[in-house]
Amino acid sequence: MDLTKEEILPYGHHVAKLDYRKILDRCADRPDGKYIDVTAITPTPLGEGKSTSVMGLVQGLGKRDKSVVGAIRQPSGGPTMNIKGSAAGGGRSQCIPLNEFSLGLTGDINSIMNAHNLGMVALTARMQHEANYTDAQLAQRNLKRLDIHPKKIQFSWIIDFCAQALRNITIGIGGKMDGPTIQSSFAIAVSSELMAILAIANDLADMRARIAKVVVAYDKQDRPITTADLEVDGAMTAWMVQAINPNLMQTLEGQPVLVHAGPFANIAIGQSSVIADRVGLKIAGYNVTESGFGADIGFEKFWNLKCRFSGNKPNCAVIVATIRALKCHGGAPIPVPGKPMPEEYAKENVGWVEEGCKNLLHHINTVKKAGINPVVCINAFYTDRPNEIKAVKRICEHAGARVAVSTHWEHGGDGALEFADAVIDACEEKNDFKFLYELDTPLEKRIELIAKEVYGADGVSYTPEARTKLTQLAKDPEMAELGTCMVKTHLSLSHDPKLKGVPKGWTLPIRDILTYKGAGFVVPVAGAISLMPGTGSDPAYRRVDVDLQTGRVKGVF
Amino acid sequence: MDLTKEEILPYGHHVAKLDYRKILDRCADRPDGKYIDVTAITPTPLGEGKSTSVMGLVQGLGKRDKSVVGAIRQPSGGPTMNIKGSAAGGGRSQCIPLNEFSLGLTGDINSIMNAHNLGMVALTARMQHEANYTDAQLAQRNLKRLDIHPKKIQFSWIIDFCAQALRNITIGIGGKMDGPTIQSSFAIAVSSELMAILAIANDLADMRARIAKVVVAYDKQDRPITTADLEVDGAMTAWMVQAINPNLMQTLEGQPVLVHAGPFANIAIGQSSVIADRVGLKIAGYNVTESGFGADIGFEKFWNLKCRFSGNKPNCAVIVATIRALKCHGGAPIPVPGKPMPEEYAKENVGWVEEGCKNLLHHINTVKKAGINPVVCINAFYTDRPNEIKAVKRICEHAGARVAVSTHWEHGGDGALEFADAVIDACEEKNDFKFLYELDTPLEKRIELIAKEVYGADGVSYTPEARTKLTQLAKDPEMAELGTCMVKTHLSLSHDPKLKGVPKGWTLPIRDILTYKGAGFVVPVAGAISLMPGTGSDPAYRRVDVDLQTGRVKGVF
Repeated sequence: MDLTKEEILPYGHHVAKLDYRKILDRCADRPDGKYIDVTAITPTPLGEGKSTSVMGLVQGLGKRDKSVVGAIRQPSGGPTMNIKGSAAGGGRSQCIPLNEFSLGLTGDINSIMNAHNLGMVALTARMQHEANYTDAQLAQRNLKRLDIHPKKIQFSWIIDFCAQALRNITIGIGGKMDGPTIQSSFAIAVSSELMAILAIANDLADMRARIAKVVVAYDKQDRPITTADLEVDGAMTAWMVQAINPNLMQTLEGQPVLVHAGPFANIAIGQSSVIADRVGLKIAGYNVTESGFGADIGFEKFWNLKCRFSGNKPNCAVIVATIRALKCHGGAPIPVPGKPMPEEYAKENVGWVEEGCKNLLHHINTVKKAGINPVVCINAFYTDRPNEIKAVKRICEHAGARVAVSTHWEHGGDGALEFADAVIDACEEKNDFKFLYELDTPLEKRIELIAKEVYGADGVSYTPEARTKLTQLAKDPEMAELGTCMVKTHLSLSHDPKLKGVPKGWTLPIRDILTYKGAGFVVPVAGAISLMPGTGSDPAYRRVDVDLQTGRVKGVF
Repeated sequence: MDLTKEEILPYGHHVAKLDYRKILDRCADRPDGKYIDVTAITPTPLGEGKSTSVMGLVQGLGKRDKSVVGAIRQPSGGPTMNIKGSAAGGGRSQCIPLNEFSLGLTGDINSIMNAHNLGMVALTARMQHEANYTDAQLAQRNLKRLDIHPKKIQFSWIIDFCAQALRNITIGIGGKMDGPTIQSSFAIAVSSELMAILAIANDLADMRARIAKVVVAYDKQDRPITTADLEVDGAMTAWMVQAINPNLMQTLEGQPVLVHAGPFANIAIGQSSVIADRVGLKIAGYNVTESGFGADIGFEKFWNLKCRFSGNKPNCAVIVATIRALKCHGGAPIPVPGKPMPEEYAKENVGWVEEGCKNLLHHINTVKKAGINPVVCINAFYTDRPNEIKAVKRICEHAGARVAVSTHWEHGGDGALEFADAVIDACEEKNDFKFLYELDTPLEKRIELIAKEVYGADGVSYTPEARTKLTQLAKDPEMAELGTCMVKTHLSLSHDPKLKGVPKGWTLPIRDILTYKGAGFVVPVAGAISLMPGTGSDPAYRRVDVDLQTGRVKGVF
């Protein structure tokens, strides 16, 4: 990629960080490459192979002699140790080395954890000292009383595992040397506002400014208390200064893959960072970025949040589907992970596929609303029948979408040539990228637009708590600078994970609205979603170990 | 150092890890270099410049054309963000780059944090599932009820900051989805048993075996529950597999410095790892290792714990002293950090120096009891008077110790030639290294020997709780394999930090005895020492920030 030695910061022999600043400075006058987002139909327990398709597309574009880079997000230690291990792709379309990928890579999540928890240390220590000292004693230390309301703490601690025991805790119970006794909690690290900031920041100065605006609590007069009020914003940034550089890995066929920021698009932005995409667009002719889960979740955030903050305009969006998952959406029995596949999936059933395509069509229309060209990738599986594939092609083409069948799982880049060609063609076409709403749109209207136009709801309802916050935010002069980051299950277009296909006749219930002034988001929360998952009774860590001869980790992917 | 490219794992452009396995395999037949431990008199608020002297000695040996490597421990984020920033040396004798050094280096402490906290996740999740499921339901998941006693949990969570609010907490208060409500706590990360294991392990297999033996709790029949019982020992090792490789930094004059394991010799082993020393002894003619605080704490652990576990034999030990600190021990007013030095220190006072040398002599005798040659390094300061230095030389030489005045702070390696020559000479002399006690010595006798022979106490007293544990341990068949790792203040030879010089007529009070079956230590705790320090009211993080142009961190050293 013509990178200089100074721009590459090696971490061991197989992974590196890229000095984003040096690269962007050197390439400032270079035109951007083509920008492709990879999203999917609504996820099913089968998986659609979205990451596999990202790697397949990158490899396919490589086979077509295009300079190309992939951009994906890092996994969280929580799910990796809990339910599934972690992987980036599969078969002959993977991002390597997978052990490093699965076990913290170059430490960005740890950096976020340290920066975030240092903020909580500053908050709780300050509350303790204000309780123990007079105003005069505080003044000796050049401190003004912040008068933090112990019941209005917004910030929590983070840890990157599924730790249900830390979900609801009481801290400071040891007396005045420990500080005031207050309710507190741990969230999973990747849900941190600092992760959102890492994903959305344009550069270090932007990251520094956003960290300073994180609201950690309110005082007794209901005024916000920020990390800057605690004088910890600079130190928090110091712990994240290495994390701002994207990580460099590669596909099985040697194309570069940038890995940056965190997962969980249901509760966070959940996609690779703006900085990684900025770097990718400068160093390659094609930057293939992934947005988590279905197009209602991942693509909507890519579209109205990430691209708005970055100013980058996508050239096309890929929607990944499998015949199996379409059948599941179309009425086939829902498979249970870990159990044998229901035998119905082995038989041809064009009816189920056609019915399942309604979910796919819904997402095609969402992409079209953004003014860009959709490309459907049928991620091929050996049980797929020609008639089933023909049905998908017919339906998608009728809806005005390109369709490609891709066998990248089995054949790597050579299996993704049709897919790559469809993307190349789509990128050459004229498009008219536009947001679903402008930032001067009132929040209530924004949520309504997302609910109706993207999710297919009939309307939106609010709890009294959410309604109160909506009213408060309507009066907030900063509202017109805040993006909207929805929290909703990824398992259905609706808020109810059990509803497959395209649910009709439902209302989106907004339970709460969080405000992340640092990241620059308001976060409407639809339904009950926890920021701290639990570790199950048969966790993945039972099967993880280390080969004592080679030092190689076993069992994480 | 003749390292191959494969043996060096770069982390950015200025820091690396060394693949200890490849180096030890390649150098298996090579004789070990000379092994020098650097310790000090009892610390005072002035600091004795022990790390500075390690760097000075390494640089001085370099000027004498010796192949030499230094070995120091990594700092903790807690003190770095709280009271003082962090540094490794000073003036012209430093270990660089300091920003990386101060802010987590290559992430070893984060690895320990993740491994350790995963153990707590496994413990608390298991307690939850055992509470919610029947034996039959557990059996479906191939689990046997462990029946963990909720009041007999030994393990705690860790975080690498001074977080007094997390010192005493209640967890699992959200109902059956969160797990049982229990008392818990966070300790500072570097006090973790896993840090002790990293410091003491001989290789990966040894580390894996020790991690599996960590006792996290007891069941209702008082039987120990280990990480292996929780089936999380392999995964914990997986998170630490990179951390086992020592980090490579350098002195200001370019000699290699290995940085590994953690600080706090008062509550932990607090010195560089056995693995780093094994590597250092193979790749260089001289390996200069540092043991934290005074010889009563750091050297005693180096001598009876680290060298016993590693099998390495030191050739000599350096005791660092400053004229200022000797005056402080001899009766001069105790200075307060942050305030101007009492003016008495500017004037010659041979009487105070002579009186303070009693503390130095005590530590010289401790080193001699180990059968090795002491070298006293007077770490020179511009206020030192010739008569004061003469007095120290006379007293030390009379006691049979070499003495060197070293100006490495001002002049780097060129100022440390006399110091280096004294160490070279001491290493050539015959010595007879022997432990203070053998492992078949009963624990009560071991503690008595350390208290009397090393600390200068008249005897030892026990709380009823400690006495009960002493009795239990006397019956434990594994006792004869466990080392003894004392927990005691470093600010005095006694347990009372206020007593300077050589306290007389006192008894060492043992408050508790912890057992770390994984690390392989029993830990007698003298006096009240917390495993979680607090963040003060004028913490160092207030002055930390990032230069937005260069990305350079400011204010951590």
